[in-house]
Amino acid sequence: MSVQEILNQIHTSISARSDRGEVATYIPELASVDPGHFGLAVALADGKHYTVGDAEIPFSIQSISKVFTLALALGMVGDKLWERVGREPSGNAFNSILQLEREQGIPRNPFINPGAIVVTDVILASSSPAETLAELVNFIRYAADDGNIYINEAVALSEKTTGHRNFALAHFLRSFNNLTHEPELTLGTYFHQCAIEMSCRQLALAGRFLINAPGVPQLISPDRVRRINALMITCGHYDASGDFAYKVGLPGKSGVGGGILVIVPGKAAIAVWSPGLTAQGNSLLGTEAVQALAQRMDWSVFG
Amino acid sequence: MSVQEILNQIHTSISARSDRGEVATYIPELASVDPGHFGLAVALADGKHYTVGDAEIPFSIQSISKVFTLALALGMVGDKLWERVGREPSGNAFNSILQLEREQGIPRNPFINPGAIVVTDVILASSSPAETLAELVNFIRYAADDGNIYINEAVALSEKTTGHRNFALAHFLRSFNNLTHEPELTLGTYFHQCAIEMSCRQLALAGRFLINAPGVPQLISPDRVRRINALMITCGHYDASGDFAYKVGLPGKSGVGGGILVIVPGKAAIAVWSPGLTAQGNSLLGTEAVQALAQRMDWSVFG
Amino acid sequence: MSVQEILNQIHTSISARSDRGEVATYIPELASVDPGHFGLAVALADGKHYTVGDAEIPFSIQSISKVFTLALALGMVGDKLWERVGREPSGNAFNSILQLEREQGIPRNPFINPGAIVVTDVILASSSPAETLAELVNFIRYAADDGNIYINEAVALSEKTTGHRNFALAHFLRSFNNLTHEPELTLGTYFHQCAIEMSCRQLALAGRFLINAPGVPQLISPDRVRRINALMITCGHYDASGDFAYKVGLPGKSGVGGGILVIVPGKAAIAVWSPGLTAQGNSLLGTEAVQALAQRMDWSVFG
Amino acid sequence: MSVQEILNQIHTSISARSDRGEVATYIPELASVDPGHFGLAVALADGKHYTVGDAEIPFSIQSISKVFTLALALGMVGDKLWERVGREPSGNAFNSILQLEREQGIPRNPFINPGAIVVTDVILASSSPAETLAELVNFIRYAADDGNIYINEAVALSEKTTGHRNFALAHFLRSFNNLTHEPELTLGTYFHQCAIEMSCRQLALAGRFLINAPGVPQLISPDRVRRINALMITCGHYDASGDFAYKVGLPGKSGVGGGILVIVPGKAAIAVWSPGLTAQGNSLLGTEAVQALAQRMDWSVFG
Repeated sequence: MSVQEILNQIHTSISARSDRGEVATYIPELASVDPGHFGLAVALADGKHYTVGDAEIPFSIQSISKVFTLALALGMVGDKLWERVGREPSGNAFNSILQLEREQGIPRNPFINPGAIVVTDVILASSSPAETLAELVNFIRYAADDGNIYINEAVALSEKTTGHRNFALAHFLRSFNNLTHEPELTLGTYFHQCAIEMSCRQLALAGRFLINAPGVPQLISPDRVRRINALMITCGHYDASGDFAYKVGLPGKSGVGGGILVIVPGKAAIAVWSPGLTAQGNSLLGTEAVQALAQRMDWSVFG
Repeated sequence: MSVQEILNQIHTSISARSDRGEVATYIPELASVDPGHFGLAVALADGKHYTVGDAEIPFSIQSISKVFTLALALGMVGDKLWERVGREPSGNAFNSILQLEREQGIPRNPFINPGAIVVTDVILASSSPAETLAELVNFIRYAADDGNIYINEAVALSEKTTGHRNFALAHFLRSFNNLTHEPELTLGTYFHQCAIEMSCRQLALAGRFLINAPGVPQLISPDRVRRINALMITCGHYDASGDFAYKVGLPGKSGVGGGILVIVPGKAAIAVWSPGLTAQGNSLLGTEAVQALAQRMDWSVFG
Repeated sequence: MSVQEILNQIHTSISARSDRGEVATYIPELASVDPGHFGLAVALADGKHYTVGDAEIPFSIQSISKVFTLALALGMVGDKLWERVGREPSGNAFNSILQLEREQGIPRNPFINPGAIVVTDVILASSSPAETLAELVNFIRYAADDGNIYINEAVALSEKTTGHRNFALAHFLRSFNNLTHEPELTLGTYFHQCAIEMSCRQLALAGRFLINAPGVPQLISPDRVRRINALMITCGHYDASGDFAYKVGLPGKSGVGGGILVIVPGKAAIAVWSPGLTAQGNSLLGTEAVQALAQRMDWSVFG
Repeated sequence: MSVQEILNQIHTSISARSDRGEVATYIPELASVDPGHFGLAVALADGKHYTVGDAEIPFSIQSISKVFTLALALGMVGDKLWERVGREPSGNAFNSILQLEREQGIPRNPFINPGAIVVTDVILASSSPAETLAELVNFIRYAADDGNIYINEAVALSEKTTGHRNFALAHFLRSFNNLTHEPELTLGTYFHQCAIEMSCRQLALAGRFLINAPGVPQLISPDRVRRINALMITCGHYDASGDFAYKVGLPGKSGVGGGILVIVPGKAAIAVWSPGLTAQGNSLLGTEAVQALAQRMDWSVFG
């Protein structure tokens, strides 16, 4: 059966599902998204790609942006990044602050909120937020080979107005001297990076730089690709990372907009979107779709 | 360069190292092990194998036994196991009890101590400890194709006398009705499973059942092999699992005896032994040796 | 109005109450106690005393025993006790183990379970459990001037069979070298001390040694009396100690048998019994009765 | 011996002490205070008062202000306050945020930072910060019968610039909807209240409204006086409250400026100042001076 046929079958099966999880409500602009959306895209190493469902509708990538900022930060400061953020799964919710207190202001990994805020603080360096965001968006456009990728200002603003938990994290980091800019500045950048919108097709294509195969865009070294994949498999789904690795067997990064970027090392990048979330903040049907796809394609990093 | 030559080079480099970590002292019988030992073995899918250093000296496999008991438990009760234990990294020390309180007696994963105690409780089922241990040892002997594998009673006894932390965990589990046998019975079995002794060569050969490749001993289904590998990569090195995945890029399980079993899906199983440990309880030089080997062989699950 | 009349009014008011909390079920022998019981007794410094309701029925004093063992332990080792146990409110449940991990085996105070287990370990010293318990019971009999006070063996046994949480605490303490005897030995003594039975009248009379006034039994120095009262007001009601101090304004110690001993420094000792408990493990109606009594008598340590 | 003679003796003894603790450094303006200062004042119910040492030098009262704001808040909203803040000792540091996460945004008591921030949020109600602060200062001036009490703007500003931990707490409270104003507004008020300066003499006189005796300023009801005293004894010294109650036996509230206000119910109010702090953030010599004074005067709420 062809990839397209498998995608079609998964789409049919998912479309029939009534239990779709809950759309994130804590960012007002996202709360109004139709939970009925579902899109799926697969991009192979050579750029060939397949889509099904709402794969052309841009959605808020939210925390998936953390994969791109991590790549940028590692490019800028290399392993010095790990003096300010750890590489361990957190064992706590994505926005938990208690672990940060216990570990003296060093976030456990770059994918939970406090860690991602530190990463954004790193890429801000001496650039302005506008310059930094431009560089980030250009990086993503180049990876996706698609200039039609933008930040949704309304979503960024919505998050700024309601993001008290993130402000708490940023001030807390600052109290431990693990934030070099004013919280407002770093968070302003952070909220904008999260508000980048991409379609499943664009995201799958952009994800190819993490495949490690001939023919993909060479944006970072193969060694670094492996390491970002390692972080994705151990920490990419917050406190459900172990479960995702267990069920899907592939590195992935989810966002509360309902998207997931999944890498099949050496072979493909997958992007899925379904706005309803599990209690842990990951796309409910998105996870199931990727699990089905991995099984049908016999894709797993575990042999 | 041949596998053997690479092993030799790693051995030479490691032998010169003076910083070797600390031998675990909390099990008196293990405290007297010579920290100068170093062994390394690689078994390919077809059974061909290569060794260097102290690869024939049996050492206490300790927590590496948890991989074998997990395989047995999944074989006995399947996914019902997950009603009693989770699949998430813990974000805490291997013998931490506080998370167990917060999560109402459900250990986070089968590789931290409380989770492994529950797994042992599962395989005890209606058998006696002696029968259960016989079955476990036979499973390992069959996997290694080597009948010369035994439990060190002195180590088991030593652990029983001093294992107050594990007794605390077992009673705590029991207070949440997540232990079906008396703590003494389950722990007696648990201490014996940890006291199994194997050489690097034996361990690498036994690990082949987790490779998922033609020619390896088919002890469990390919699907289950993948899933055990997933648990190893997210939870196999306690609160340094993320770091191991980041540096080595392969699923592994460590023990406080200084051994590590590492799987290269589709290709090989690696066993290393160096008794000195890091603060997180993993073999210091063992980790470095495996990292070097993976790099030299270009082995990584991440492409 | 006389003390007796006030007691009668409180009895009438309490008897009419339908919401009586939940009888502790985790000790099977206690689960069968009739929740309708209610007794109240007041003993003045000079030994004059007043009772109402079920004030002559012996009940299981449980954690109230910790006041007496603390007095004994301070008499034996003085301030050296504070090397093994703290003097701070815990901010956690009475049987919580997580704080014990964070604070390296030093319980926060002598009234939460782990702290009380350490205190019992101290008074065991070189005596046998039987001798130690005899000394404790004699101390209480002398304080109450009443030889008719006994340990209920069935309750002690019931607790031993089901006390997995306490076994976990004891082994945990032992793993930090903060238990000098085998857990079984210390806990055997601890379960028996908790199983002492006294009536409200006996308990109020026994409590007089903590009043600090002329005419009361002089069992410990006035300074030590004050200090035990200080511990009772800050730590005597587990994680509801602040609330009790706020509402009642007097030092007290509760037990899961539904009893509370309250001290009015310089004036009186109060004992109340109603088996139904709040979520924090304190007698629901007992607290209310004492609050009413304190208000009516204008008794408060706060002026 | 007269009160004055006792004060003189304590002053002599304290002056000779070389170990004086560490002056708080996290508020830059306070870091430069001379650690050699020591002042002590006692005000009796009738207004008679005695002083020794630097009892006329104004110091930053910091958290002692929380006693006055609590009195105001209870006057404004009564027991409704307890819907937004608890009454239990915290078992954690004064600026800890982890407990706030675990307890869903309800601070444990009004004397730890998050609780005090909520109290300030309550008294802000519909007034402006300036009006609220004027009311607070007037309350204190009235209680002290001394118009010469002011806010140190430089200290308030210093705290605002460096108070990232408090900003984190405020945003965190806001994320749980337990802050009705913008964090900047409530914290602006909070930093100013902490920057009130008083001398020991002024503070002891102001503290008389908590004595509950004829002749003292009747600012709040006797019942409320008792309850504030109860909160002071269980929560007034952060995570050393139990220790203070044990050693001193009186309700007190400390501030990181090195001051402590202590109440002897029915008799007196004590104010002490020595800028060097213990690890828990309480005045080292201040605590010892009060302990000595209480012992010499035989003052204790425990008989």
